[in-house]
Amino acid sequence: MQILDIIEKKKQGFELSKEEIDYFVSGYTENRLPDYQISALLMAICLQSMTARETADLTAAMLNSGERMDLSKIQGITCDKHSTGGVGDKTTLALTPMVVACGARVAKMSGRGLGHTGGTLDKLEAIKGFNVQMSEEAFLNQVNTLGLAIIGQSKNLVPADKKLYALRDVTATVQSIPLIASSIMSKKLACGSDTILLDVKYGKGAFMPTPQKALELAEAMLDIGKHFHKDVRALISNMNEPLGFAIGNALEVKEAVETLKGKGPKDFLELCLCAGSQMLQQAKLAKDDTTARAMLLEVIENGKALDKLLDMVALQGGDSNQLKHVELLPQAAYTIDIPAKQTGYIHEIHALALGKLAMRLGAGRIRLEDNIDPAVGIVLHKKCADYVCEGETLATIHTQKKLSKEWLADFYAAYSIQSTAISKTPLVYKIIM
Amino acid sequence: MQILDIIEKKKQGFELSKEEIDYFVSGYTENRLPDYQISALLMAICLQSMTARETADLTAAMLNSGERMDLSKIQGITCDKHSTGGVGDKTTLALTPMVVACGARVAKMSGRGLGHTGGTLDKLEAIKGFNVQMSEEAFLNQVNTLGLAIIGQSKNLVPADKKLYALRDVTATVQSIPLIASSIMSKKLACGSDTILLDVKYGKGAFMPTPQKALELAEAMLDIGKHFHKDVRALISNMNEPLGFAIGNALEVKEAVETLKGKGPKDFLELCLCAGSQMLQQAKLAKDDTTARAMLLEVIENGKALDKLLDMVALQGGDSNQLKHVELLPQAAYTIDIPAKQTGYIHEIHALALGKLAMRLGAGRIRLEDNIDPAVGIVLHKKCADYVCEGETLATIHTQKKLSKEWLADFYAAYSIQSTAISKTPLVYKIIM
Repeated sequence: MQILDIIEKKKQGFELSKEEIDYFVSGYTENRLPDYQISALLMAICLQSMTARETADLTAAMLNSGERMDLSKIQGITCDKHSTGGVGDKTTLALTPMVVACGARVAKMSGRGLGHTGGTLDKLEAIKGFNVQMSEEAFLNQVNTLGLAIIGQSKNLVPADKKLYALRDVTATVQSIPLIASSIMSKKLACGSDTILLDVKYGKGAFMPTPQKALELAEAMLDIGKHFHKDVRALISNMNEPLGFAIGNALEVKEAVETLKGKGPKDFLELCLCAGSQMLQQAKLAKDDTTARAMLLEVIENGKALDKLLDMVALQGGDSNQLKHVELLPQAAYTIDIPAKQTGYIHEIHALALGKLAMRLGAGRIRLEDNIDPAVGIVLHKKCADYVCEGETLATIHTQKKLSKEWLADFYAAYSIQSTAISKTPLVYKIIM
Repeated sequence: MQILDIIEKKKQGFELSKEEIDYFVSGYTENRLPDYQISALLMAICLQSMTARETADLTAAMLNSGERMDLSKIQGITCDKHSTGGVGDKTTLALTPMVVACGARVAKMSGRGLGHTGGTLDKLEAIKGFNVQMSEEAFLNQVNTLGLAIIGQSKNLVPADKKLYALRDVTATVQSIPLIASSIMSKKLACGSDTILLDVKYGKGAFMPTPQKALELAEAMLDIGKHFHKDVRALISNMNEPLGFAIGNALEVKEAVETLKGKGPKDFLELCLCAGSQMLQQAKLAKDDTTARAMLLEVIENGKALDKLLDMVALQGGDSNQLKHVELLPQAAYTIDIPAKQTGYIHEIHALALGKLAMRLGAGRIRLEDNIDPAVGIVLHKKCADYVCEGETLATIHTQKKLSKEWLADFYAAYSIQSTAISKTPLVYKIIM
């Protein structure tokens, strides 16, 4: 087999065989093929796409490049969830204790954030002492006893994806449905859970610009799930404005805790109920959406969901007292209220722009070795479609330094306030299974 | 400017600006940009193409990467020609003495062959002592006195093309009209002649599979010519079967000499007349095709064209006696006649297949450092549309070793002989200017 023939074949728009896909994935992972040939092939894939069969074979080839978690020692159905990422997305922190309090098992491996705001691990590490490293035995043990553990990816999971992603990142070949779908699904499958719920986001703060594109990506991932005989479902959800009110690591932990106390933002709670309902149905713990939602609301009401989070934090070395008394979480030096400059209805709060503003405060990292400041961030007071009066607070900024003129100008530029009323866009566009 | 933005822009099918094109060409040539980013960009160019403006700017950027020949010291209009390459293409050897004998000036820089058969330099070096290296002064001097010189590319001409072509060659990004057009034209423009005649070949032994594709490439090159205010014209010619009868370096020299004596193959003579007519019109030496052809036939008739070749060979250190007595050219150990296995009309002589068979005899090279055997090759006795009887000689093979069974099987497989008569395809499909 010759890599040139494979590149040429894909360039001409033909379907690659399983053997050809295995050849280039293993050849690249094992350093037998050079970057410049694989980047040409990746660009050809971006522009000529891949069939469902090719995408499944690509996922399998990547999956086979490394180790896989074996969760068979966990009793019951293990449920995983994955979000394609967004601004203010603290879903895992609230959702997983909720479903686990209802009887589900969640053995979750999470990643760190790169770009505008932190990832789940960064958010959990805003809690003093929280440890994301654990032996496999301890991890499985905690899931069996508590039902829940969230750790970093410690195993040699999907090295092919690490290498391919690094190359895609520097060759403008990230945007491609089959490449994104196989990258996400190879990692999720390597983590070994019985069921997977995907939250595929669209809009100004997401990978996919439109609900249609997000749906296309979700369907590609469900196709891969079918190929591997996994129960995979997906929400398509709106990420034009940030999720909830809080952006920033400790601020999002606080918001997740408030949500588990029944005092969270409406949109964020709705996302947790919607996702949780699917997960409980996938875990055969609820027969339909109505039952599932009632169960989820009940564990918020009776405090069991919050207890799960507190127990997990305590078991993983974290100071759960900081969650009982959220004012003990890291605090920024300044809190600055930013007033609206005009009266009207908020038509837009550009999610990515706010994410980048939070990053400039120190809430995100540009390189993996950068440090994150857990205390800083933005707390919105108003969301899209809300009415705001001139002088009323749009958001409170948690910062260690005064805000620059440029920062403030960029902040205001992220908002569009108009005189005409608009209706709220539903958070969840579609659920597919 | 960021290379990632440039790749992304082309990936999405947008037009790159002159500045963006200059940025990536100079960045790559000067080793500031890595192979893997440029190969991704090249693949995006292959699949999204380039406008005429982009292609002209790419040509200019490549042209500016190195030195350019200054032919201003040559009196009169200098004429260059370029063939996109084929099997048995010895056109330069016969055509340039013909037009120079009619008064044109040809200061030609040629390349070596890579692949099936030798390039013009390899063919000329089949003549004992012929020297393709010359100082710039001697080169210009020879053109001023004799009208003709053919040398190797000694200057640092278009280093960007050298680097880009080497990368395209290993990333399946050779096939692309704007990339091929800018590669050829940047080199031709760097050579500095006043006019350029292109012979763009299509068919089984050419880059371009169909006349339509060849026309598209020719038009792209003419567009570049217009951008640079150069008189560029193009023939579109058939390369489904080899040109003339001879394939192999000394054998082709012999055929060129025979053509200059008025005893050459009909198709090859026709190509020389057709190309020569355009060149004489470009050089303002003939007002129309009829006049030009008469002039060209006259210099064959009166021996002036052959004399030009003999004089050039002598001036460049070659043994012109070998051209007067072609039996003195390198001879292979064996000449083997291959008989037809059946009676009928020849429907196909697969040019590329015969080129590769000649290469296996030693007439071509795989790597630039390989040696070529000037003596070996194939001389056809029959061409497409000819009638052949079983047992009649199809071709004579000039070889240093006995022919293997595999070689013979591949030779016969290159022919299609059928019972139905077919008409000859015209050699020149179109002339554009």
